[in-house]
Amino acid sequence: MKDIKQITAEIRKFRDERDWAQFHNHKDLALSLVLEASEVLEHFQWKSPQEVERHAQENKDELADELADVAMYLFELADNIGVDLGPAIVNKMKKNALKYPVEKAKGKHTKYNKL
Amino acid sequence: MKDIKQITAEIRKFRDERDWAQFHNHKDLALSLVLEASEVLEHFQWKSPQEVERHAQENKDELADELADVAMYLFELADNIGVDLGPAIVNKMKKNALKYPVEKAKGKHTKYNKL
Amino acid sequence: MKDIKQITAEIRKFRDERDWAQFHNHKDLALSLVLEASEVLEHFQWKSPQEVERHAQENKDELADELADVAMYLFELADNIGVDLGPAIVNKMKKNALKYPVEKAKGKHTKYNKL
Amino acid sequence: MKDIKQITAEIRKFRDERDWAQFHNHKDLALSLVLEASEVLEHFQWKSPQEVERHAQENKDELADELADVAMYLFELADNIGVDLGPAIVNKMKKNALKYPVEKAKGKHTKYNKL
Repeated sequence: MKDIKQITAEIRKFRDERDWAQFHNHKDLALSLVLEASEVLEHFQWKSPQEVERHAQENKDELADELADVAMYLFELADNIGVDLGPAIVNKMKKNALKYPVEKAKGKHTKYNKL
Repeated sequence: MKDIKQITAEIRKFRDERDWAQFHNHKDLALSLVLEASEVLEHFQWKSPQEVERHAQENKDELADELADVAMYLFELADNIGVDLGPAIVNKMKKNALKYPVEKAKGKHTKYNKL
Repeated sequence: MKDIKQITAEIRKFRDERDWAQFHNHKDLALSLVLEASEVLEHFQWKSPQEVERHAQENKDELADELADVAMYLFELADNIGVDLGPAIVNKMKKNALKYPVEKAKGKHTKYNKL
Repeated sequence: MKDIKQITAEIRKFRDERDWAQFHNHKDLALSLVLEASEVLEHFQWKSPQEVERHAQENKDELADELADVAMYLFELADNIGVDLGPAIVNKMKKNALKYPVEKAKGKHTKYNKL
């Protein structure tokens, strides 16, 4: 089982073998992150809740590839900026727990500043 | 060091304590993934390469939070669809290695179908 | 009643009075177009069809501003690239009419290449 | 020369001939607006300022189609929400003139809340 750090090292190796660091500035990586996330979203365009669910089951391999594309840009961008993504997630979840206390947020999708 | 699976389990727990699964259908999660990726990108809007680099260094903590937000929706969406994200990334990198062989792709940002 | 060309001329004037053309390259304008479109989308995040409809009615002025932001970047980007947007839309609708003939597309949200 | 209102009427007619209003809720239209804006942005991914400029000149027809796609969803969404887009743009430009007074904003890309 590979963790985020190991996968990130492989992404970096892949990039450097192709001499792509020259293109992978933060701005183009962030832009690419949005483009890949949009490709995930496109799968669900115009679809009803039932169609969304069925589409995901029937296209799991394709969605796995799209989600992997998002992950690769995310892991590389974090690495390039000097962010250790695993601890950053754990840290952000702690902040979210304070912004969305269970008793106030339960069963609601209201944003924290309107809770 | 927590891996993707462990972090995903914590995300699921956070969600279920708040009874939020009812809102977290694939479509809204994919939509949220795009919105959070856009917040990362907004950091670099209008900025020159030098400004981008400096901004990232001076706002590392804020960017860590934004990248964590992307990661949380990504991990949860993969989990909900039944995609094991770690192996999915490794698998996609193998496909990319075939689409972008080093000798053809080196030093170029051309898309594989135009290489 | 101002048309697209007149509004575009005002956008250009606004930009040039502030000496902003130096920042408004195609890439940053396209990026800004995505960011503003995302702000429109954020209004509907997590909301059910009924909540979406009600939110739009109750926040029409705010949505008008967000849609205007998208329009301003769209009109300026088209202008900068040398695209006459009005005729471009009419032209694209003719193409779409061929891709989506009424008898095949009626009542379906299927993409043209799968119709 | 067709104005926004006339083009919007044609978009509505195109949609209704195909019985597509059932799919064109605000959320899916906003989502589609983001997807089409992303397709515009994809044209400029990884490209240097010089490459961006050249690409736009060499692909003007394709970009015209992509910009038209954004415009069509934008005009329809505004129409569905009950926003008169032309006046909304003029109104937003007046607000922007107050947020970005020439003497303070000239030659700077700083956001208004940091000016």
